Amino acid sequence: MSRANIKQINSCNDGICINKFKANGIKTEKYGVSLIWNDDLCDCAAVFTKNSIKANPVKYDIAQLKRRQKFKAIIANSGNANACIKEGLADVREMCKIAAEKLKSNPAQILCESTGIIGKRMDIEKIRKIVNDLDINEISSRNANKAIMTTDTKFKEICYEYKGIKIGGICKGAGMIAPNMATMLCFLTTNANLGANNSKILAQCLKESVGESFNMISVDGCMSTNDCIILLSDATKTCSADDFKFLLKFSTQELAKKVVADGEGATKFLEVVVEGANTKSKAIKIALTIVNSNLVKSAFFGENLNWGRIISAAGSVAKINFDNVDLKFEDMDNNKLVKILEKGDAMKLDDWSIMKAKNIRILLNLNEGENNATAWGCDLTYDYVKINAEYN
Amino acid sequence: MSRANIKQINSCNDGICINKFKANGIKTEKYGVSLIWNDDLCDCAAVFTKNSIKANPVKYDIAQLKRRQKFKAIIANSGNANACIKEGLADVREMCKIAAEKLKSNPAQILCESTGIIGKRMDIEKIRKIVNDLDINEISSRNANKAIMTTDTKFKEICYEYKGIKIGGICKGAGMIAPNMATMLCFLTTNANLGANNSKILAQCLKESVGESFNMISVDGCMSTNDCIILLSDATKTCSADDFKFLLKFSTQELAKKVVADGEGATKFLEVVVEGANTKSKAIKIALTIVNSNLVKSAFFGENLNWGRIISAAGSVAKINFDNVDLKFEDMDNNKLVKILEKGDAMKLDDWSIMKAKNIRILLNLNEGENNATAWGCDLTYDYVKINAEYN
Repeated sequence: MSRANIKQINSCNDGICINKFKANGIKTEKYGVSLIWNDDLCDCAAVFTKNSIKANPVKYDIAQLKRRQKFKAIIANSGNANACIKEGLADVREMCKIAAEKLKSNPAQILCESTGIIGKRMDIEKIRKIVNDLDINEISSRNANKAIMTTDTKFKEICYEYKGIKIGGICKGAGMIAPNMATMLCFLTTNANLGANNSKILAQCLKESVGESFNMISVDGCMSTNDCIILLSDATKTCSADDFKFLLKFSTQELAKKVVADGEGATKFLEVVVEGANTKSKAIKIALTIVNSNLVKSAFFGENLNWGRIISAAGSVAKINFDNVDLKFEDMDNNKLVKILEKGDAMKLDDWSIMKAKNIRILLNLNEGENNATAWGCDLTYDYVKINAEYN
Repeated sequence: MSRANIKQINSCNDGICINKFKANGIKTEKYGVSLIWNDDLCDCAAVFTKNSIKANPVKYDIAQLKRRQKFKAIIANSGNANACIKEGLADVREMCKIAAEKLKSNPAQILCESTGIIGKRMDIEKIRKIVNDLDINEISSRNANKAIMTTDTKFKEICYEYKGIKIGGICKGAGMIAPNMATMLCFLTTNANLGANNSKILAQCLKESVGESFNMISVDGCMSTNDCIILLSDATKTCSADDFKFLLKFSTQELAKKVVADGEGATKFLEVVVEGANTKSKAIKIALTIVNSNLVKSAFFGENLNWGRIISAAGSVAKINFDNVDLKFEDMDNNKLVKILEKGDAMKLDDWSIMKAKNIRILLNLNEGENNATAWGCDLTYDYVKINAEYN
């Protein structure tokens, strides 16, 4: 499975509405509600936040997924996280009931997710009204995506096909994006059928791909109470786990990159590639630390070639031999590669225009082993502070 | 040893120049140089950055302190960190030589520290010129403090006396202040004589006090290549280790608080007190995570009572039972205490003016055990981004 196979992945325009999956949503001023559904029961896998403070819908879904593996629909809202609210579990149940009535389904076959402010009681009547207004004869992945957006400024929607396997997805998340997921809701649909234990194998594949996608992005190092990724499969396409994993990793990485590219206030997209580490965990730790460093992030915002901050961030979490280190920056839009350090020696740079690039790859080679890791992030800007100072 | 003893601590005006310790410094546009010295050899203890990428003066001092325990002077500069520069060790040696010539001393009895940009060769001739211009008949702790400042906007100078024990100190550091020290240079002088193994016991006391002061502050979660705290003692006052530790902890905490209060761009000083944790390490981890959270920090900048971000930050690093949690905010200038959460129930707040306070204590009680920890930080502001986008 190589990068060349990516050519065989075709983009489609269905978003999350592949095959018979349907979706629609309505965004009002403060609240938004999306429904994603299938008339048939689907196999299901999910990954949730590792925060010990879990929002009520997360607690509810985890409990439901222990009880059964097949679901028909997801109801998701923006505007309120339903977290740190003792009475909130009743509101989750009510949301599933509202969705079930609308879709003429069973509340137990519906999962629920929320995003928004923590610690405020959900306005369940607003949710009911929006669902009431929702036209389930209209199918719109885009509307469903829009309805779950909070500080997001861009749609995050994908649809890919590879060897007949399809994956569709929508995602929200722009701040609080940190290792171990993000304030991120991500809903994926697929047709993959991986055999008798489909849900179980889907779950393994999802966990693996999240490790190389959503867990490798960071906007601000904060971990949310509401993060989740839910995957539904209609199981109509028998395929190999390897082929499915290949497409799933590609799909989740594309969505993860869309999330950081739309990071709150971001003006630059950063890809950090750590190469030549003597262990995989060291490569991962360094890549995430660099992409999380406020000092590195603000230097890129200022278009300031302060490479010492990258080295310092790396050294703060792992033993680095500076005399071995190569560092390069790449303008990803123009394939322009600039050497910054070669075996610890700083290059004399006449042309600093690389710092003006919008999409920058930072290549740090430790030259000590065979392990690599890639993390994605963005710069730290005035607007990040503004958005998060004012958000309520 | 209780808080009541603090009344017995007297402030003095000598800064670092207690007893026969002398200091002076000159700050020019880009570079600054300070000398701190004593005509007699002093016992010495030090704590350095845990970053695996260590600046050349840090490497040099660590090696020197392995060879001998007595030193006469410190030369320190701002403007260049002398880090990630292969030839930089020769420049450290040259700086010690320059200082030794000025003070008619031996280079081996001199320690060296630097702060400033990483990855650029030190302009040793500038250092030589400044030391040449320095008047060693003038004694000025304040000048020495000024000369090592970079983005600092306030002096950080202390001098305290307790039962005849004196501690003087100067400190610089305003950004990159993170757990496990900071881009922070801190020089301390004392008269404490703790017996035959004075240097060794001083080192133990210093390590302990750093754990409860400089390691509990954070401006931006980044760890520098240059952090150091050096303590020199003329050993003229025989005292108990307990009395010395008491004064040292108080002194280092006062300096640490001055550092975060002057955090780059900060408009608010935050003290996070985590109480009732079932382990000490859990209390420390949670306190530091809260004080480090960009989301918490920007909420305080916006004077926005987004308490969910505090709970979410705590839950992201440790298992929290939300139903047990008490949360209070205290306006430290007016002793005004406001309950936010009581056993997980959000209080109805009519008066939100607590968020307008400049010095805010965040009291989080987990109500599960007996362990407490305190961390200090500041808000995240437009000016933090501006300073770090433009710094070079």
